Amino acid sequence: MISVQEATAIIAQYIVPCPIESVSLEQSLGRILAEDLCADRPFPPFDRVTMDGIAIRYADFAAGQRHFPILGIQAAGTPETLFEKAGGAMEVMTGAVLPKGADTVIRYEDLKINNDIAQVMIDTIVSCQNIHPMASDKKTGDLLLPSGVKLHPAAIGTAATIGKSVLKVKKMPMVAVISTGDELVEVGETPLAHQIRRSNVYVVQAILKQIGVSSKRFHLIDNQEVIKKELKKILKKYPIVILSGAVSEGKFDFLPAALQDLGVIKRFHKVAQRPGKPFWFGTLGFDDTVEKQIDNQCVVFALPGNPVSTTVCAYKYVLPYLQACTGLIPKPPYARLASDFSFTPKLNYFLPVYVYSHSDGFLEAIPQVGQGSGDLSNLNRANGWLELPADQNLFKKGSVFPLITY
Amino acid sequence: MISVQEATAIIAQYIVPCPIESVSLEQSLGRILAEDLCADRPFPPFDRVTMDGIAIRYADFAAGQRHFPILGIQAAGTPETLFEKAGGAMEVMTGAVLPKGADTVIRYEDLKINNDIAQVMIDTIVSCQNIHPMASDKKTGDLLLPSGVKLHPAAIGTAATIGKSVLKVKKMPMVAVISTGDELVEVGETPLAHQIRRSNVYVVQAILKQIGVSSKRFHLIDNQEVIKKELKKILKKYPIVILSGAVSEGKFDFLPAALQDLGVIKRFHKVAQRPGKPFWFGTLGFDDTVEKQIDNQCVVFALPGNPVSTTVCAYKYVLPYLQACTGLIPKPPYARLASDFSFTPKLNYFLPVYVYSHSDGFLEAIPQVGQGSGDLSNLNRANGWLELPADQNLFKKGSVFPLITY
Repeated sequence: MISVQEATAIIAQYIVPCPIESVSLEQSLGRILAEDLCADRPFPPFDRVTMDGIAIRYADFAAGQRHFPILGIQAAGTPETLFEKAGGAMEVMTGAVLPKGADTVIRYEDLKINNDIAQVMIDTIVSCQNIHPMASDKKTGDLLLPSGVKLHPAAIGTAATIGKSVLKVKKMPMVAVISTGDELVEVGETPLAHQIRRSNVYVVQAILKQIGVSSKRFHLIDNQEVIKKELKKILKKYPIVILSGAVSEGKFDFLPAALQDLGVIKRFHKVAQRPGKPFWFGTLGFDDTVEKQIDNQCVVFALPGNPVSTTVCAYKYVLPYLQACTGLIPKPPYARLASDFSFTPKLNYFLPVYVYSHSDGFLEAIPQVGQGSGDLSNLNRANGWLELPADQNLFKKGSVFPLITY
Repeated sequence: MISVQEATAIIAQYIVPCPIESVSLEQSLGRILAEDLCADRPFPPFDRVTMDGIAIRYADFAAGQRHFPILGIQAAGTPETLFEKAGGAMEVMTGAVLPKGADTVIRYEDLKINNDIAQVMIDTIVSCQNIHPMASDKKTGDLLLPSGVKLHPAAIGTAATIGKSVLKVKKMPMVAVISTGDELVEVGETPLAHQIRRSNVYVVQAILKQIGVSSKRFHLIDNQEVIKKELKKILKKYPIVILSGAVSEGKFDFLPAALQDLGVIKRFHKVAQRPGKPFWFGTLGFDDTVEKQIDNQCVVFALPGNPVSTTVCAYKYVLPYLQACTGLIPKPPYARLASDFSFTPKLNYFLPVYVYSHSDGFLEAIPQVGQGSGDLSNLNRANGWLELPADQNLFKKGSVFPLITY
């Protein structure tokens, strides 16, 4: 049995960088940028007026002039006008180009205007005030957003500003999400006493959807031949396969054997953690020494079938793996334990917690201990897990641990 | 000029509860649940085996029996079998129904099996061990998820488990997002020297999309008659209208006048904050004493046109308003200021920050002071704002303030 850290390190060896595709600006929210975005022109592109008022020459004001004849109007969206006459003023609007020859803007609030004469009502002004100078934010060619960032709303604004109506982004892989076990019936069906409805596949699909990954659902019955035949088709088509259930050591846990028959090499089975200990991970096509039945690369996460185990493993291993394939290496946040907690087995324990932002600036995690890995309903009281290390037994109130949230 | 707190309180008076619609389970991620979800059967629905091994009667073990003849197999997904013979055992698989008559499960790791006789290799076992008892998590009818929660992946698993292939959720309103100003050209066009591309509308649409709200883009040119005519059509069709630009006091800021001509009542104009001071907010059809030109209700957020101002106001006012319409009252998180900062005007200052989860458990906010409300590129260095109060000038390193993130 390996540690959580070892499992994470092994999975990281099989990261496959995502290819690149082009999407429209409107479709790019949340995607991972796959090109550098640079300024196509200076930011701002001209000396930009930042207040409604009048534009003058500072030298005139400094020489004592306080009454300025208004020569015209410079609105936003009109070409730069010539500031024709020394001692004059132009009315200017926020966002307008500063008229050529003017160098200072005085806002309406500091003026009295009568018969097209603006009288300055204040004693001091600063040269070049109320102007956002051309290129003061960015010069042409300056890097605005590097390849690899996740496109948030402000980034989309940046892309729009430089004219990128189409963006290069990382293409997310298509994932197969497979349930196993004859005890499962469809969500729309009424289960018999010994049956339950499929739920893990919906949870995994929703987790993937949170990072923009599409997936297709499958179900495999508990029959060695059927499992092998169906898995072969799926492995040919999907670069990432997530299975739920059928990886412990019972008589009907056919999956590990079927996967290995198909050339999927087991990289580990069982991790020193609770829940999720029977987690099995394998790869296909990453090792040339193995005879290939299937001519492509595939990574297989076979997650334990208990609902909490499936959910923890999907967040802890599958999600970071997919993010790493896009180039993102997200760091987990940290949270403070709100009460003492003890756990004696030498396993990493994923403690269900309700986490919230305390007004003292800490993320505070309140333990929500449920009834173990089968207790799906407890996941609704919690909103994440604290990752408690295997080498401690007692976890004191106020101590801080890595956090996984959903 | 009113305070940020007053502006927030005024907007809250015009919350319109969203209607309810039905969506498929697969489409429900991130939506707001509009019905209580209750257990349709006990959780778990039967005494559920949690380890692969054998099921026995504890009384036999307590009486000294250590060798158990295996009478059959109880797999997951098969109906409950009868435990036929005292002193015997049934092989059982994880997820299976506990065979009738058995009360304790011993895992394979603690057994030696030869010729269908299981020998127990440990000295102590606990009565009822390795069984998840029927109804121990939830009883039939117990509330699992209350109306009003946001559907996260685990909640979707809960819905699947109780057979909800269709869910009642809050129907999100359709929003009109309108840019104004003759200085704007389309993203795909090459602007002249005095022009810039439309970007604010894309930012606002992306912010809305983050909470599942669809919107349509419009553009209004700087012409009083055209503005009035177009706005009238939009106000008739969209319950929420977001405008960007044209709300300060310049000669070409026609919007407030046009809105009031159309019966939109100004609720406030100007908020003591930076950026975003010229923010204008109005409503249509909430006051019966006003003669109606348009026969419906509409809430109008007219945001200042500087890119940072638009973005801050959308996150600070529009997003919480829409969430409140769905029934969510999100609490902002808090973050710790990473360095001293001073700001003297008597305004709420939204300080751009890069926030991250420090390993000491704090959310740590590093100031990223840009060049003011026109500096769109600075939004890419930051990932949120600290909301600094208006009644302080000096903000000390280590102090904690509310945070807005994107």
